[in-house]
Amino acid sequence: MRIAFVGDSLTVGVGDPHYLGWVGRLCAASSLAGLALTAYNLGVRSETSTHIKNRIGRELPPRLLPRDEARVVLSFGVNDAKVENGRRKVELSQSVDNLFDIVTQVSKLSPVLMVGPPPVLDDGHRSRVEELSDVFSRTCEDMGVPYLEMCRALGRDTAYLDSLVAAGDGYHPEAAGYAAMAGKVAEWEAWQAWMRGC
Amino acid sequence: MRIAFVGDSLTVGVGDPHYLGWVGRLCAASSLAGLALTAYNLGVRSETSTHIKNRIGRELPPRLLPRDEARVVLSFGVNDAKVENGRRKVELSQSVDNLFDIVTQVSKLSPVLMVGPPPVLDDGHRSRVEELSDVFSRTCEDMGVPYLEMCRALGRDTAYLDSLVAAGDGYHPEAAGYAAMAGKVAEWEAWQAWMRGC
Repeated sequence: MRIAFVGDSLTVGVGDPHYLGWVGRLCAASSLAGLALTAYNLGVRSETSTHIKNRIGRELPPRLLPRDEARVVLSFGVNDAKVENGRRKVELSQSVDNLFDIVTQVSKLSPVLMVGPPPVLDDGHRSRVEELSDVFSRTCEDMGVPYLEMCRALGRDTAYLDSLVAAGDGYHPEAAGYAAMAGKVAEWEAWQAWMRGC
Repeated sequence: MRIAFVGDSLTVGVGDPHYLGWVGRLCAASSLAGLALTAYNLGVRSETSTHIKNRIGRELPPRLLPRDEARVVLSFGVNDAKVENGRRKVELSQSVDNLFDIVTQVSKLSPVLMVGPPPVLDDGHRSRVEELSDVFSRTCEDMGVPYLEMCRALGRDTAYLDSLVAAGDGYHPEAAGYAAMAGKVAEWEAWQAWMRGC
């Protein structure tokens, strides 16, 4: 099975000195359970849903060939909800339109899951990520895409929050935080259902 | 510094249950030495130089932004030299033309290094990889791109060969083989020069 993970710097695993991030840890845990996954990490630093919408239609086809079982995991939103120079990087309604467009594109190629954006340390930014996560959750539900809420779940997770503080930018965790995030996805019924099909 | 690693399944790290491959191990070793690298793994399974030539001009620009220091490491060739149904997947002269085209495209964006294709177990295939590696080495020299010969170097490396046997397909190693490959790149003067500039 080939799985592409599509997202931003948190998908890349920026800040993890082991260069695994949550994606590498999740796949390694699945591999230890005897599964054969090829993982493509298509996270790109600082990207919003608008950037992702514009590249994903080109980047998935070479990686997800019709002859192989294919899956896509989406994960973005923290950059959409960021305010820079007094302006939100992507307005809420535009983020939703982008998610709709991305899911529509990806669904033509493979089944899709979405892992919601994790919390950040800044209170204002975090509230906007929570709001966006709620809207993403409803959009995914409407489109029949399983959605894993992460902002509130990891906002109660001491390992994740300590890791955000330790990493220093208030935005990316280091190894322990990525391990906490991988653990939540590994326990998720929708992910486990995919793994049973491997 | 942002580094994109462009290649095939060996660049992805297929066969490594830890989901690091040589790219992850190389970056983690550099990170432990106190460097801040963002690594983009743009390896795709089963790709030849022809596939890579056709996608790389689209995939690098979103990852290598003008505001950041950017670097690209190329590594491919094993699939070019494969014979399927009595035909070589990419003729030698076409592989060289592809490499020339890829280096020309990438050089407009960033400095380039090339890590040559590693050995495989099949004798006929391995001879063709060695021949291709020699031709790639000369092409890179002509273009001013540092080239790291891997096919002969790892062909004398017991850890790599044992790892190829252990993995079972005669083509991809498992963890120990990828560690051996990462070690050779980490010791390479051209790589070390980049890391000193970080």
